Amino acid sequence: MSIRIGIIGYGNLGRGVECAVRQNPDMELAAVFTRRNPESLKIFTPTAAVAGVGEIAQWKDKIDVMVICGGSATDLPRQTPEYAKMFNVIDSFDTHAKIPEHFAAVDKSAKAAGKVAIISVGWDPGLFSLNRMYANAILTDGKDYTFWGKGVSQGHSDAVRRIKGVKNAKQYTIPVQSALDAVRSGKNPDLTTRQKHTRECFVVLEEGANAAEVERQIKEMPNYFADYDTIVHFIGDEEFAENHSAIPHGGFVLRCGKTGANGENSHIIEYSLKLDSNPEFTSCVLLAYARAAYRLDKEGQSGCKTVFDIAPAYLSAKSGEELRATML
Amino acid sequence: MSIRIGIIGYGNLGRGVECAVRQNPDMELAAVFTRRNPESLKIFTPTAAVAGVGEIAQWKDKIDVMVICGGSATDLPRQTPEYAKMFNVIDSFDTHAKIPEHFAAVDKSAKAAGKVAIISVGWDPGLFSLNRMYANAILTDGKDYTFWGKGVSQGHSDAVRRIKGVKNAKQYTIPVQSALDAVRSGKNPDLTTRQKHTRECFVVLEEGANAAEVERQIKEMPNYFADYDTIVHFIGDEEFAENHSAIPHGGFVLRCGKTGANGENSHIIEYSLKLDSNPEFTSCVLLAYARAAYRLDKEGQSGCKTVFDIAPAYLSAKSGEELRATML
Repeated sequence: MSIRIGIIGYGNLGRGVECAVRQNPDMELAAVFTRRNPESLKIFTPTAAVAGVGEIAQWKDKIDVMVICGGSATDLPRQTPEYAKMFNVIDSFDTHAKIPEHFAAVDKSAKAAGKVAIISVGWDPGLFSLNRMYANAILTDGKDYTFWGKGVSQGHSDAVRRIKGVKNAKQYTIPVQSALDAVRSGKNPDLTTRQKHTRECFVVLEEGANAAEVERQIKEMPNYFADYDTIVHFIGDEEFAENHSAIPHGGFVLRCGKTGANGENSHIIEYSLKLDSNPEFTSCVLLAYARAAYRLDKEGQSGCKTVFDIAPAYLSAKSGEELRATML
Repeated sequence: MSIRIGIIGYGNLGRGVECAVRQNPDMELAAVFTRRNPESLKIFTPTAAVAGVGEIAQWKDKIDVMVICGGSATDLPRQTPEYAKMFNVIDSFDTHAKIPEHFAAVDKSAKAAGKVAIISVGWDPGLFSLNRMYANAILTDGKDYTFWGKGVSQGHSDAVRRIKGVKNAKQYTIPVQSALDAVRSGKNPDLTTRQKHTRECFVVLEEGANAAEVERQIKEMPNYFADYDTIVHFIGDEEFAENHSAIPHGGFVLRCGKTGANGENSHIIEYSLKLDSNPEFTSCVLLAYARAAYRLDKEGQSGCKTVFDIAPAYLSAKSGEELRATML
C-alpha cells in the first residue's frame, strides 16, 4: 500500500512536493489543503483532492503523513503543533534560533497524540546540519565553515522590493571564491561576513525612480547589506522575466580537522549542493523524511524528531538487504 | 564514566584509533591486543594495557567497545563474528561484494550474545556509502558517481611490489579532472574506467633490475592496471622515504538528479574528502561509531548494524538539546 501524502499550502514548496510524489512510486498524493478558495486551485494530480484548510480534520484517517509547506515566520509555529495533534507531520522550519522552542511545542502535541513529527527538514537546516554534525563527531579537533550560494535569498529580495521606487528585485548570495579556496587549502582562515559572501541585486525600477538613491538605500541597509560588498544592477522587466525568474540555490559545508599524535595530519570534509530549484530540491528532502515518519509511526514511535534522530535507512525505499548489497 | 575502548591489532589503523581516543574526552583506552609478543609493543598511552590476543576473553567486563583493526581479506571475516560473542564490536570490513555474507555471520554472533556490532565503518564503505544513500533517497531520478583519490592504494602498491626486481613501490590513484568537471557540469556523462582514474606509480628497483620490463609488467597487469592510463616513475630509496611515506587519500561522491513537472531542473549533491592520513581519519570514524555502539548496547539493542542503521545523533558526544541548538 502506498504512503498517502497530504500537502498544506500550495506555493512553490507545495507544488514541489506534488511533483516529487510522482518520483516516489511508494507514495501517492491524497489531498492538497489551501487557505485560498479550493475551487480556484489547479493542481497537477488528477487523482488528488483539493480542499480548504478548514476541512483538514475530516482527513484524519485518510492521510499517512502531512507535509506542511507554510512559512517559518508565522505559519509553521502555529501549524505544526496544531496538525501534529491529528497527523504525522513534516515541516521545513528554518529559523535556526527558534528551533528549540518549536521543537518543544511540536513534541508536546505529537507525544500527546501518539504521532511522529519531523521538523526543520530541508537542506539548511537539514542536509547541511547533518553534514556539520557527522563531521564534528568525526573530526573533534577542527573548524566549521558554511557558505551559501550562488542562489536567491527570498528574504533579501523582499527587503529590496520594500524600498520606495523598486518595482521588482532579486538578490543572489554568492560565496567569495578566494575565501572558499583558502578554507579548502587547510589554512583555517578567520573570515568576516564581508570576506565570505558577496550580494548581487537585479532591480527593476518604477518609472521616475531615483536609481542612485535606491542603490544607496540597498547598500546601506543594516543587517541585510551593510556588512557585505553589494553589487546592484538596474534592468528592465523583460530581462528580469527572462533571466531572473528561477530560484536556484546551493552552498558548501566544510570542516577542517587535525589528527595524529601531535595533530600533524589535516583532513577536509566538504559537502556541497548546486540546485536549479531550491523549493523542488527541498521538497525531495521533505518526502524522504515523510517516508521515515511513516515507518517510525508504524513502529509505534511518537514525538518530535529532527534529521539527527533518524537512521538513514528509514529514508530509502530500498530494504536493508538491498542497501547493504548495492550502496554500502 | 568513560567509554572503555579496546583495540585488536596495532598496525596503522590501531595506532590511529589510539591517537583518536585522546581527542574524545568521553573515552579511554583500556587495552591493545596483539598477535605479536606483547612485551615487544610500545604504545603511546601509559594507562592502557598491552596483551596478547589469547587473553582477550579475560577482558570481557573491562571493555565497552572493541575496535577490531584487522584486514578485510582474512582477519575480519574470522575476528568480528568471534569477538562479537564477547564484546560490542566495530570493524572496517571493506570487501564490498562480501558485506552481505559478513553481515549475516556477525549478526548471528552478536544477536546470540546480546551485543551490538557495527561493520564496514570508515569512509568507503562508511561516509561515502551514507552519502550515496542519502542522495539516492532524495534525488530518486539521477545518476551516481564515485571518484577516489588522490591517494595511496595499498592493494595496487602491494601488486607492484610483488613484481620481480621491485624493491619498493607506492601507487597513487588520481581522479581525472576533466571527468570530474563533466560530472559537476550536470552532463551525466557515461565514463569508462580509464576515463575516471589515472594510476601513478613510484618504484624503487633492486640493483640490476630491468626498468623497461618492470614498467611493462605494471602497465599490462590485468585488473590492477591494464584498464587504466598508468604513469611509472623510477626513484631512489632516499626520494621514496622523503616524499612517499605518507598515506593520504580521499575522493568524491556525486549524484546528479532531476526534478520538476517534466524533469526540467537539475541538482548536484557532492561530498568529498581530502585526507592527509587515511588510517587516522578512518580511526576517527570508527570511534564515532564506537560511541553509537556503546549507547545502543545501553538501550538493550543487539545484532549487526551498518552506518545506514544508526541515527546520526548517536555519533556525537553532544546531547540532543545541544545538537539542536548549535548544529541544526
